[in-house]
Amino acid sequence: MDYYYAPGRNHLFVPGPVNIPEPVLRAMNRNNEDYRSPAIPAFTKTLLEDVKRIFKTTSGTTFLIPTTGTGAWESALTNTLSPRDRIISFEIGQFSLLWIDQMQRLNFDVDVVSSEWGRGANLDVLSAKLAQDKEHKVKAVCIVHNETATGVTNNLAAVRRVLDDCGHPALLLVDGVSSICALDFRMDEWGVDVALTGSQKALSMPTGMGIICASPKAMEAAKSAKSLRVFFDWNDYLKFYKLGTFWPYTPSIQLLYGLRAALDLLFEEGLNNVFARHARLGRATRLAVEAWGLKNCSQREEWYSDTVTAVIIPPYINSADIVKRAWNRYNMSLGLGLNKVAGKAFRIGHLGNVNELQLLGCLSGVEMILKDVGYPVKLGSGVAAAAAYLQHSIPLFASRV
Amino acid sequence: MDYYYAPGRNHLFVPGPVNIPEPVLRAMNRNNEDYRSPAIPAFTKTLLEDVKRIFKTTSGTTFLIPTTGTGAWESALTNTLSPRDRIISFEIGQFSLLWIDQMQRLNFDVDVVSSEWGRGANLDVLSAKLAQDKEHKVKAVCIVHNETATGVTNNLAAVRRVLDDCGHPALLLVDGVSSICALDFRMDEWGVDVALTGSQKALSMPTGMGIICASPKAMEAAKSAKSLRVFFDWNDYLKFYKLGTFWPYTPSIQLLYGLRAALDLLFEEGLNNVFARHARLGRATRLAVEAWGLKNCSQREEWYSDTVTAVIIPPYINSADIVKRAWNRYNMSLGLGLNKVAGKAFRIGHLGNVNELQLLGCLSGVEMILKDVGYPVKLGSGVAAAAAYLQHSIPLFASRV
Amino acid sequence: MDYYYAPGRNHLFVPGPVNIPEPVLRAMNRNNEDYRSPAIPAFTKTLLEDVKRIFKTTSGTTFLIPTTGTGAWESALTNTLSPRDRIISFEIGQFSLLWIDQMQRLNFDVDVVSSEWGRGANLDVLSAKLAQDKEHKVKAVCIVHNETATGVTNNLAAVRRVLDDCGHPALLLVDGVSSICALDFRMDEWGVDVALTGSQKALSMPTGMGIICASPKAMEAAKSAKSLRVFFDWNDYLKFYKLGTFWPYTPSIQLLYGLRAALDLLFEEGLNNVFARHARLGRATRLAVEAWGLKNCSQREEWYSDTVTAVIIPPYINSADIVKRAWNRYNMSLGLGLNKVAGKAFRIGHLGNVNELQLLGCLSGVEMILKDVGYPVKLGSGVAAAAAYLQHSIPLFASRV
Amino acid sequence: MDYYYAPGRNHLFVPGPVNIPEPVLRAMNRNNEDYRSPAIPAFTKTLLEDVKRIFKTTSGTTFLIPTTGTGAWESALTNTLSPRDRIISFEIGQFSLLWIDQMQRLNFDVDVVSSEWGRGANLDVLSAKLAQDKEHKVKAVCIVHNETATGVTNNLAAVRRVLDDCGHPALLLVDGVSSICALDFRMDEWGVDVALTGSQKALSMPTGMGIICASPKAMEAAKSAKSLRVFFDWNDYLKFYKLGTFWPYTPSIQLLYGLRAALDLLFEEGLNNVFARHARLGRATRLAVEAWGLKNCSQREEWYSDTVTAVIIPPYINSADIVKRAWNRYNMSLGLGLNKVAGKAFRIGHLGNVNELQLLGCLSGVEMILKDVGYPVKLGSGVAAAAAYLQHSIPLFASRV
Repeated sequence: MDYYYAPGRNHLFVPGPVNIPEPVLRAMNRNNEDYRSPAIPAFTKTLLEDVKRIFKTTSGTTFLIPTTGTGAWESALTNTLSPRDRIISFEIGQFSLLWIDQMQRLNFDVDVVSSEWGRGANLDVLSAKLAQDKEHKVKAVCIVHNETATGVTNNLAAVRRVLDDCGHPALLLVDGVSSICALDFRMDEWGVDVALTGSQKALSMPTGMGIICASPKAMEAAKSAKSLRVFFDWNDYLKFYKLGTFWPYTPSIQLLYGLRAALDLLFEEGLNNVFARHARLGRATRLAVEAWGLKNCSQREEWYSDTVTAVIIPPYINSADIVKRAWNRYNMSLGLGLNKVAGKAFRIGHLGNVNELQLLGCLSGVEMILKDVGYPVKLGSGVAAAAAYLQHSIPLFASRV
Repeated sequence: MDYYYAPGRNHLFVPGPVNIPEPVLRAMNRNNEDYRSPAIPAFTKTLLEDVKRIFKTTSGTTFLIPTTGTGAWESALTNTLSPRDRIISFEIGQFSLLWIDQMQRLNFDVDVVSSEWGRGANLDVLSAKLAQDKEHKVKAVCIVHNETATGVTNNLAAVRRVLDDCGHPALLLVDGVSSICALDFRMDEWGVDVALTGSQKALSMPTGMGIICASPKAMEAAKSAKSLRVFFDWNDYLKFYKLGTFWPYTPSIQLLYGLRAALDLLFEEGLNNVFARHARLGRATRLAVEAWGLKNCSQREEWYSDTVTAVIIPPYINSADIVKRAWNRYNMSLGLGLNKVAGKAFRIGHLGNVNELQLLGCLSGVEMILKDVGYPVKLGSGVAAAAAYLQHSIPLFASRV
Repeated sequence: MDYYYAPGRNHLFVPGPVNIPEPVLRAMNRNNEDYRSPAIPAFTKTLLEDVKRIFKTTSGTTFLIPTTGTGAWESALTNTLSPRDRIISFEIGQFSLLWIDQMQRLNFDVDVVSSEWGRGANLDVLSAKLAQDKEHKVKAVCIVHNETATGVTNNLAAVRRVLDDCGHPALLLVDGVSSICALDFRMDEWGVDVALTGSQKALSMPTGMGIICASPKAMEAAKSAKSLRVFFDWNDYLKFYKLGTFWPYTPSIQLLYGLRAALDLLFEEGLNNVFARHARLGRATRLAVEAWGLKNCSQREEWYSDTVTAVIIPPYINSADIVKRAWNRYNMSLGLGLNKVAGKAFRIGHLGNVNELQLLGCLSGVEMILKDVGYPVKLGSGVAAAAAYLQHSIPLFASRV
Repeated sequence: MDYYYAPGRNHLFVPGPVNIPEPVLRAMNRNNEDYRSPAIPAFTKTLLEDVKRIFKTTSGTTFLIPTTGTGAWESALTNTLSPRDRIISFEIGQFSLLWIDQMQRLNFDVDVVSSEWGRGANLDVLSAKLAQDKEHKVKAVCIVHNETATGVTNNLAAVRRVLDDCGHPALLLVDGVSSICALDFRMDEWGVDVALTGSQKALSMPTGMGIICASPKAMEAAKSAKSLRVFFDWNDYLKFYKLGTFWPYTPSIQLLYGLRAALDLLFEEGLNNVFARHARLGRATRLAVEAWGLKNCSQREEWYSDTVTAVIIPPYINSADIVKRAWNRYNMSLGLGLNKVAGKAFRIGHLGNVNELQLLGCLSGVEMILKDVGYPVKLGSGVAAAAAYLQHSIPLFASRV
């Protein structure tokens, strides 16, 4: 049974959950297994090891927690910090805002650095605050790598430099939910202490697995962190890692096999090729937006996201109508504008297991919808702009030549 | 394991096998079952009944044979005709040619009426031949409803009129492989005696089931037809229909459930809506071809196919390069030109469970490929032409408004 | 890829995760969908309503949280209680122990009532404690309905009576992880305030969904409970229920469809028939254990579990060898003895979507293994005892007669 | 949707179609693909090569035809023989009878050598007939390796010896439908000219693929054979083999991937281990039958089949009642007695991807059913006899120790 059937494939262009490739679906099409047999621990061990590659870390410790991104956030905070610890965090859009809300409700003392939505994290303010914090009361800097609501990517290398320049020991906790496996992510090089993502984003799996990586420094912090936690407690995981049984409670067997398949696809394509593909998709989308005469919510090229583009529309159009129209006429799913940009923006997710012709199909649909809702766009203009770029940048598939 | 993996969805635009919708894949994801239990016969009975709707027949007898379209052809011929029987058939492209080849090798006496490829069946010649055949030596007229190689649809109502005008009793055997479930097909109204299709075409299933419908007149002929046959023998099926066990040999349980799901989707969308969708997709494709300055292999509007478009390209381009390029750069599958139009045409299949944005993605890819291979197309031009039409013709999904 | 392949079906007889029926696997075999489209909220609404039937409640509020049973425990505690609140809980086996450990680590004041493992909750002690608690300092009584480690089922109606007899207002929080959908569970009748289970138990789904039901009294408590929580916060869910979008964060689309299929199967079989089937399987297992001359860890008939049987073996055998042997010779998965009964007991899970012949296959395997490891069992004896009972108690399938 | 749902797994013990292992189901869970792309021919090539191993041939030519066993029979006959050619064939049960019926209807001159059902092919008669045939009018000897109706396995090495002893050049055509991939089959060693099986038998796939292997001598015969054929014509396949495109018409993409997975499983287990497993299952079944005091339809040990056992029951019981009872009470599927043994025998299929505990579950069910229908069996007796043997013969899984 499906709700509200429509013919042909659903064009899923929300910035998560994203399209699941067939090999992942196939891998997950299986009965449950006893997770206490010798098989699942041996399998888990290879996953915990291989998943480090998506973080570009060799020193990190990885956790595969049966939860969502929101749970992964909670895991990162409660395992490394104690009640009333001071955090600096950046509000640049809806998801950074939700994380800050979580920090506050979990009883941390959050110093919020806000930017206009559409701009990146204000690192000058960070720099100033850290410089002032001679006593190192700030225990953590929390930042969203890619703000999914506005299509803004923060510069993590720059954040690291600010911390280093101040010689500040605060932990660096990073939400990589809509970046990891799509944008280059260098945990060790950037000195990230906790990085996290969710299975339903660029890994292109179903929702249900929080993938978390902790640096040695974060692991050290976890020993003394006083935040209450049981379900999310890394120490329980560590206990079972040592026992070699790996799981403090029942994992989803299906998601483990799904992760194996998802990693295999990423490694087969090559992570750098995956990043290049996302760069192409992002740029193609922006060229279409420009051709339509519309504005990217992300204000500057340095912040442009290659995984999601939030498109600002004229005030006489409600972006919710665009999303609704996509759904009830073209079997396409676009992202709504959220909170401060509700009604003002719609979002095109271009992350995960998706290719150029899928995107062009989406863009051709957006053009029709824009006309449907009264925006004077020239049909074909965005597609033409995107295609002119793609035609010169898509490589041949090495394996198929 | 996949051969030659490429990221994102494969854009499958060959005129069969076509995209399988998820509900059909789901229905087929199952273990084998005992086909002699009470369940499978009861299930089969509903399928044999419901499948009549795709032929628009109430008087026909249906067969679901574990074979392909080629086997379905053989079934139609050997069950209704005897060795050396005279057949009139039309050669208008590769598939009609292959069927004629089969007729000849099965020892029928075939009177071939050839047309230039790109033109439909010459009904004037048919009329003349039937008029001359006072002794009714012609036992069957065999015609391909939609020639997949050239994108030509024959007018079956007109064929019927010719037969009726001559008062000729020949059987009318129709290959509906690339038409049934996509183009309107009226078995009873048009007096078709045997109609057939394959599961991998507009039914949008895997290959492996030949769906055949025989009129009472064809069933009568089957009683006396002397062509040797066992595997394809309808009489064996009839014997088991009477017993209520329905199967002379083992059917594919998975395809039975797949057929159920496929029929349910067609009926949920509504057959007339399905035909209208194919009409939209066909016209949109032709508008793009026109915008590119290229020619439809199908020479006249009366013959335009709404399930496949064969596009003639300039002599300085080899159409095989276009198909290859689609595959090794864009993860798209287009149809080759076959036999007389090899190298000269490529084919876009737009049948089965596919929608407008999928087609526009395909058209945007074709534009890039045309440029890649040196044809001076304006990027976006075909998409714009197709979208301009589609924007005014796609209806809202009734269920989603 | 599978780890350590063995031919034929794996005989999965651990008390969770359990066998997933094909209709559930099929329902879950699907791409992601936009959970903010109109479809998913409409779908969720029916699920939240229908899932009440498995709790036998009309007044409860249901939550489908992307977590495991451990997370569901945490959700129950943190939403209804405040730090240092007093809880009475029963330690009767490993899972009740783990829940108590969670309570303590979440900073509640737990009054632990221990029983010898193999016995049920000591309700006399409960009665005494509640009677003494004139000031109603005890805020909650927490009990595991069915202790999976020992195969002991507690009598929830009796617990309710104790509370009522004392006129005590404490909340009654119940772990129904290995009971709900297998043993009769009457939330409203028994005055349960929070009941919870996990998808991979008697619902026969993959792991990943905590299913929680809260009484009006529990919902009232949730308004003032001061335990820190975000991911597990019911109030966030309520906010989105009111908005009609239902999800504070991304659910697993696949598990939602899986739940639909799982509920449909339970309702088609009939919940009372499901309970009767589990009663048959439980009794058949116990008859086999008796025939083998072995002891049930559960000491009295009143506590016998119909979902899992822990079998005590002679001291000269290590039960881990039985479990290992099952796996490396018979492709069968049995449960280990845990903690206090490690080495001393092995467990047969007989819950979820499983039938009598599957169980008899399992029992025949256990007989061989017992001989393998040196226990002098008569082959066929347990199967005969179980079959003698089953032969007279299995009903015909109503639909198949 | 399922017809007549019953809880737990269906116990599928008909001698085909058999249980499909999950890796095969997973491999087949996929969209259609363009079979004219470079991928499918490359993939097909490896399949045509690897499938030779199941025939133990290096010199044979293999065909994967979208049909059933009945179609594979027709393919074997029509490609190697001409109308009125003389065939010697053996009637020893329903399937050999059906093949003979096909031979006759295809206009061959069949010399039928009948045995009492329950006995193997009478090779003395064969020997005498061949010795008399000085002019070599007999063009083929056709034999069913394993007669599925009676559970009789013929000795192919002995057949070869008879042919060799007479120096007779007749082709040896073998139906290996219920033997190949379960019983040792040595095409080259035994000088088999055409061997064939169907995908739904010991390969443990869905129905729909006829797997055929032809010796060089058979291939030579195919050049001159005058039987009419198109769909089944090997020469059409050969033409496409030479072109490197491999398919004269559309194959089932799903079955190709399913075959890959099925072969991989067989090779991973090891063909000799597969044969040994079937030998164990066959013997265990026969020991149970003996313990029940019932007779094997197969009259002598030399003919006992390790893939199917037909059990003769006392005249006061109708075997159809046993099969019905299995289905409507135990969710088990057993084989009916066919034709001459209708009502007198029921059949237990023990072939394909099945293991010992599955069989013991089946046997325990049969015991209950026998009592249900009034046969005085001691419950547990058959299981005990089978288990006593299995306990000493099942090996540990090498990979799991």
